[in-house]
Amino acid sequence: MNKARLSCLAVAIAAALATAFPAQAARQQQQQQQQQNTGTTAYRASVLHFTGDPSATQQSYEYYEDGVLLVGADGKVKAIGPANTVLSANQNAQVVDYRGRLIVPGFIDSHVHYPQTEMIGSFGEQLLEWLNTYTFPTEKQFGDKVYARGVAKTFVKELVKNGTTTALVMATVHPESVDALFEEAATRNMRLIAGKVMMDRNAPGYLLDTPQTSYADSKALIQRWHKRGRALYAVTPRFAPTSSPEQLTLAGKLLQEYPDVYMHTHLSENKGEIAWVQELFPSSTGYLDVYNSFGLSGKHSVYAHGVHLRDDEFASLARTGSAVAFCPTSNLFLGSGLFDLQAAEKHGVKVGLGTDVGAGTSFSALRTMGEAYKVIQLHKAFTDNPAEKKPLTALKSFYLSTLGAAKALDLDDRIGSFKAGNEADFVVLNPNATELLKFRSARATTLEEKLFVLQTLGDDRTVERTYIMGKPQ
Amino acid sequence: MNKARLSCLAVAIAAALATAFPAQAARQQQQQQQQQNTGTTAYRASVLHFTGDPSATQQSYEYYEDGVLLVGADGKVKAIGPANTVLSANQNAQVVDYRGRLIVPGFIDSHVHYPQTEMIGSFGEQLLEWLNTYTFPTEKQFGDKVYARGVAKTFVKELVKNGTTTALVMATVHPESVDALFEEAATRNMRLIAGKVMMDRNAPGYLLDTPQTSYADSKALIQRWHKRGRALYAVTPRFAPTSSPEQLTLAGKLLQEYPDVYMHTHLSENKGEIAWVQELFPSSTGYLDVYNSFGLSGKHSVYAHGVHLRDDEFASLARTGSAVAFCPTSNLFLGSGLFDLQAAEKHGVKVGLGTDVGAGTSFSALRTMGEAYKVIQLHKAFTDNPAEKKPLTALKSFYLSTLGAAKALDLDDRIGSFKAGNEADFVVLNPNATELLKFRSARATTLEEKLFVLQTLGDDRTVERTYIMGKPQ
Repeated sequence: MNKARLSCLAVAIAAALATAFPAQAARQQQQQQQQQNTGTTAYRASVLHFTGDPSATQQSYEYYEDGVLLVGADGKVKAIGPANTVLSANQNAQVVDYRGRLIVPGFIDSHVHYPQTEMIGSFGEQLLEWLNTYTFPTEKQFGDKVYARGVAKTFVKELVKNGTTTALVMATVHPESVDALFEEAATRNMRLIAGKVMMDRNAPGYLLDTPQTSYADSKALIQRWHKRGRALYAVTPRFAPTSSPEQLTLAGKLLQEYPDVYMHTHLSENKGEIAWVQELFPSSTGYLDVYNSFGLSGKHSVYAHGVHLRDDEFASLARTGSAVAFCPTSNLFLGSGLFDLQAAEKHGVKVGLGTDVGAGTSFSALRTMGEAYKVIQLHKAFTDNPAEKKPLTALKSFYLSTLGAAKALDLDDRIGSFKAGNEADFVVLNPNATELLKFRSARATTLEEKLFVLQTLGDDRTVERTYIMGKPQ
Repeated sequence: MNKARLSCLAVAIAAALATAFPAQAARQQQQQQQQQNTGTTAYRASVLHFTGDPSATQQSYEYYEDGVLLVGADGKVKAIGPANTVLSANQNAQVVDYRGRLIVPGFIDSHVHYPQTEMIGSFGEQLLEWLNTYTFPTEKQFGDKVYARGVAKTFVKELVKNGTTTALVMATVHPESVDALFEEAATRNMRLIAGKVMMDRNAPGYLLDTPQTSYADSKALIQRWHKRGRALYAVTPRFAPTSSPEQLTLAGKLLQEYPDVYMHTHLSENKGEIAWVQELFPSSTGYLDVYNSFGLSGKHSVYAHGVHLRDDEFASLARTGSAVAFCPTSNLFLGSGLFDLQAAEKHGVKVGLGTDVGAGTSFSALRTMGEAYKVIQLHKAFTDNPAEKKPLTALKSFYLSTLGAAKALDLDDRIGSFKAGNEADFVVLNPNATELLKFRSARATTLEEKLFVLQTLGDDRTVERTYIMGKPQ
């Protein structure tokens, strides 16, 4: 009898199990109680979070091997620390025992397309052909809100299953697609940033808006969703080739009118794309210059990919406080190229990791970290001085999926770490989730080694439980 | 209650389930009966196998959407075909109903190191430093046969769990490590090719043999294991840098004395390695030339990697009938480079896919195919004519893990396809194994699309059951 079949039977046999296995039942009961509880909860596990960038500072994290994450009734972090200290100072707290597991802040996906959930693993093309062959026909259906809501449900479920508690999401050109996603995220009180794609040229007619409708629709969505619950809005021109100068001008206008909304687009993913941008905007000095010239850069701006950025472009991103989403599985899958994280670091550009589903091949932050490592390693094959190319440490990749991404999204005052007062989005990782992971984890001694094993061998099974604002999902 | 916990409880609740869920119980009973049965078994599912190389011939496979794989009491394939035809011609056959699943030949791993099972996911180095830092210290322990047997058990279990029924395996320098592995494989009647590493220089003293002991030990192992049950032996110099000319001479002598044993080594994985070989063998015209000059190439010779082969080296491999094991996850993980499959095809070099665990990051043939796709795609980022670089089709990658690998190992008269008389090693793949896979598979229409989704999203969970010589594992 295999796991998949057992899983289908889970509901039916839960009651029987509770009788047969009192320890399991106790934990379950504990969790149910805690969901109803109005008090403080102490999650006991190994607890890790970051306080700074591991590439930039010596002491970048706090780690308690036998630790506690203390969460208040308001779903916010009260404290973290050694189990004994925190527990004895909080004797009324309800204890949830996750010993043997690792608790880290919920993962943040810095770039993902929810409508592409159903086209993950589409064969054979690079960016521009891939958009025409697969993406545009898929996105056509999202004018139907019922349809969009169905996919949004699967998407949000996959995020949660993979421990992702916040994502910066591209919807489609249809306002309905944004409503569907935010409504679905609201059912879980999830902090999501999303926006309607603005696209008025170089795509099939059925997906085009106009500068005016894109402005009006985006504005209405901002008013409807931005800061409603935990929702945040991103002005979302797809990428320079599919927006006229008029549309980009209006995107800039929206950012001026609503200075705290986000800007989310693509940048320098593929060489053919870069050449096309130069044709379309002949007076620009480069791809990023197009966005800069319309006022789209800034500390709430996130550019996906940036695989082929020049030094002066990295410097410009740093100057404007704009961030880049590094999407390794996508860059490999579309054959786009190798993101130069070391250059981004040198210039002080903010970076977060992104899955970029559906060009990315996995919703798993852990698998994305594993692939990020490979992308960075592969730089060594294309240089005469491989020793100059530093490997991506596991501390850094966990940082890039938590605090680093929160900084990229200018949300580090609320998520990405266990700073007191932050929203308690967190993940319980099980280093024994599969037989191989257990076998290998037993041989890992340092924290860094344990994290590296988790990101190399881990997947959705490693995520034992995801919590959003203190609530188990 | 999550899957991991449920899994631990599987044994205890099996009896209760059988009562509560008669359909599940019936299948289980059916399988138990079939294990004891002496007759013919008809496995009903979608059935796919290859008859040729998809890159070379138009009609490279046979596929029966509602098909049957018919297996005799001797564990050999009797026939495949449409379910109705095969079932009505074999009315006494016991039917095992796997409808909704896909049956393919067992996967063949063309290059893997079993002692490295415990060091998968070791951080930060490229090939040569990685050997010194992680591999050699790990391999030291395999002189202890009890220790070796323990790891061999885990290794073989992982192969089976991932649907791999044959592998070409490097053991360590210790003959005990080979005994341990073959003994473990014999408990499952698994067709495994393995050999003792020959290594008499440029490694820690505790791992070195001498030309004479390596010759004598290898010879004794050949006599003990080659063709015993399904075991086959491979003369295994680790790679040119760790063998003296004297040792390579004796390796060649073994191949002459036992012309049907295998030769298994590494070739052109990393640029630093290639430069080192040139220093060590200054009169050679290149890396492959070293092996050629000692008589190590031939139709039973398998070279792992070949990432940086020159055109004349590909041509030489084709001439001698030698094969290359393409190990994408390893080449990415160690930052070795991008294997040029298109060049191998152009020259007619035999290729099989390999995991190369522990530099490879997964035992899963499916995930290895997914990563192979990415490696081939990434060539497009490093050329001015990306359109000239063809994507790796899913038909081709399934071929490279089944019939293609069997040809690379000169075993296509016994495994790798469902030709009548072949040994019935096969895998039952479930396209609904995870929620995301189910969601995506439902949207795949053609066979090729279904296979591509399986390799992009699949993992060990996708392998519902592995059969070796007709026996469920």
